[in-house]
Amino acid sequence: MSGVSQDLYEAMSTLRAVRRLRRDPIADDVLRRILQAAAWAPSGGNVQPWRVVVVKNREKRRAIGDLYQPLWQKYAAGHHEHLSKLSGEVLAKQKRMLAAADHLGDKLAEAPVLLVYCFNPANMAITDSNMDRPSIVGGASVYLAVQNAMLACRAEGVGCVLTTLLCAEEAAIKSLLKIPEEWYTCGVMPLGYPVGKGHGPISRRPVNELAFADTFGNGVVL
Amino acid sequence: MSGVSQDLYEAMSTLRAVRRLRRDPIADDVLRRILQAAAWAPSGGNVQPWRVVVVKNREKRRAIGDLYQPLWQKYAAGHHEHLSKLSGEVLAKQKRMLAAADHLGDKLAEAPVLLVYCFNPANMAITDSNMDRPSIVGGASVYLAVQNAMLACRAEGVGCVLTTLLCAEEAAIKSLLKIPEEWYTCGVMPLGYPVGKGHGPISRRPVNELAFADTFGNGVVL
Repeated sequence: MSGVSQDLYEAMSTLRAVRRLRRDPIADDVLRRILQAAAWAPSGGNVQPWRVVVVKNREKRRAIGDLYQPLWQKYAAGHHEHLSKLSGEVLAKQKRMLAAADHLGDKLAEAPVLLVYCFNPANMAITDSNMDRPSIVGGASVYLAVQNAMLACRAEGVGCVLTTLLCAEEAAIKSLLKIPEEWYTCGVMPLGYPVGKGHGPISRRPVNELAFADTFGNGVVL
Repeated sequence: MSGVSQDLYEAMSTLRAVRRLRRDPIADDVLRRILQAAAWAPSGGNVQPWRVVVVKNREKRRAIGDLYQPLWQKYAAGHHEHLSKLSGEVLAKQKRMLAAADHLGDKLAEAPVLLVYCFNPANMAITDSNMDRPSIVGGASVYLAVQNAMLACRAEGVGCVLTTLLCAEEAAIKSLLKIPEEWYTCGVMPLGYPVGKGHGPISRRPVNELAFADTFGNGVVL
C-alpha cells in the first residue's frame, strides 16, 4: 500500500472541489488507492454499511449525467438569482464557482469515473432517527469514508467533488446499477484529472468561528 | 500551519478507535491543528453548517460523562449478549473492543477534552429529507470535518473515537453547553493521549467487498 507520498495537512488544506474534469482515464492503481483509502475509514461498530459503485461504463455514465443535468439546472436557478445580491470579490468568486458547477451540470458524464455511494440503513445504529428534528447521524458511517476518498484523490492529483442532488433520482439510479432494494444512494462523486490547476488554496471560516470553548458561541482562542 | 509532518495514507491506515485515554492535558497548539483540520473540510455550498464545542471544563465533562454512562450500559447489554454467538479470534477481538468501550463508558469524563459536534439543519440542503427511507445526507456537511479532525488526531498522537449515543440526551447537552435552539448535536469525541499503544493496525473489509464495477455486487478488481 505504498504508492504516493502526501503530507496530511497539506492534502486537507488544498482539497478543493474540482468541477472541470478531463476525459482521460484514471489508472487502476490510482483508483485502487482511492478506494482503499475509503475502505480504511472507521464506522459505527466497524460495520462499514456503505458500498460504492465505480461507474466507468460510458452508457451508464451518460444515463447518470442525463439525470443530473435537469436537477442541477433547477437547483442552480436559485443560486443565479442570489448573485444579484452580491458584489465585488464575493460576486466574482461565486460567479466562477457557478460557472464551474454549470459546466459539471452539463458534463458530468464526461468524467471517466463516477463513484456512486450507497448505504444500508438496516446495518446502521442511527441514534437520532426518532427525534423531532432532521436526522443526520446515519451519515457518520458513510461520509468518513467519502472524506478519505477525497483526500486520496487530492494525493493522487485527481479532481473530485461530492454531489448529493441525485438522491432525487434514486429510483432510476438503483435500477441502472442494480442496487438492491435495501440499499440507497447518498452521493455521486465524479473523478477526473483537472482541466485547470485543480487542487489549491481553499476559503474557509476561521477556527474561532467554528470552535467554541466550553459554551456555544464562546469562540475558542488557542 | 506547519506543525506535524504525517503521511496521509499512513494516517488513514492506522487510525484506530482509541478508548483508553490518559488524563494528561492536550497542548493548545495540538488542539488548534486538530480544529483547523476540521475547518478545512468541504461542505455543501461551502456553508460549513457545523460547530464544535471544545469542552475542557471539568464539571461539564463530568455532566456529559454522567449522561453517557447509562446510555452506554444499555447499548452494551445487546453487545455482550451477542458475544455468546462468537468464538475464537473473533470472540477475543470483540471482547477486547467491548472491554475498552465499557472502560470509556465509565471514564468518558476523564478525557481532557470532549469535542461536541453541532449542526444547523436550516443551513443544509438535505437532498434526501423527504424520501421513504432514513435520511443521512445532512451528515455530508459535518462528518467530512469530523474525519479531518480524527486524521489530525492520528497525526498528533492523540487518541479519539466518535460516539453518537449522546443524541438521546441532546436536550440536556444543549442546556449544559448553551447550544441555541436551532442547533443540534451529532456526535461527541473524547480526545486524550492513549493509555496503551493507541493508533495502529486496523481491521477492515477488503476493497472488492466494498467497491463494485459498474453494477452493484460486481466486486471491483483493480
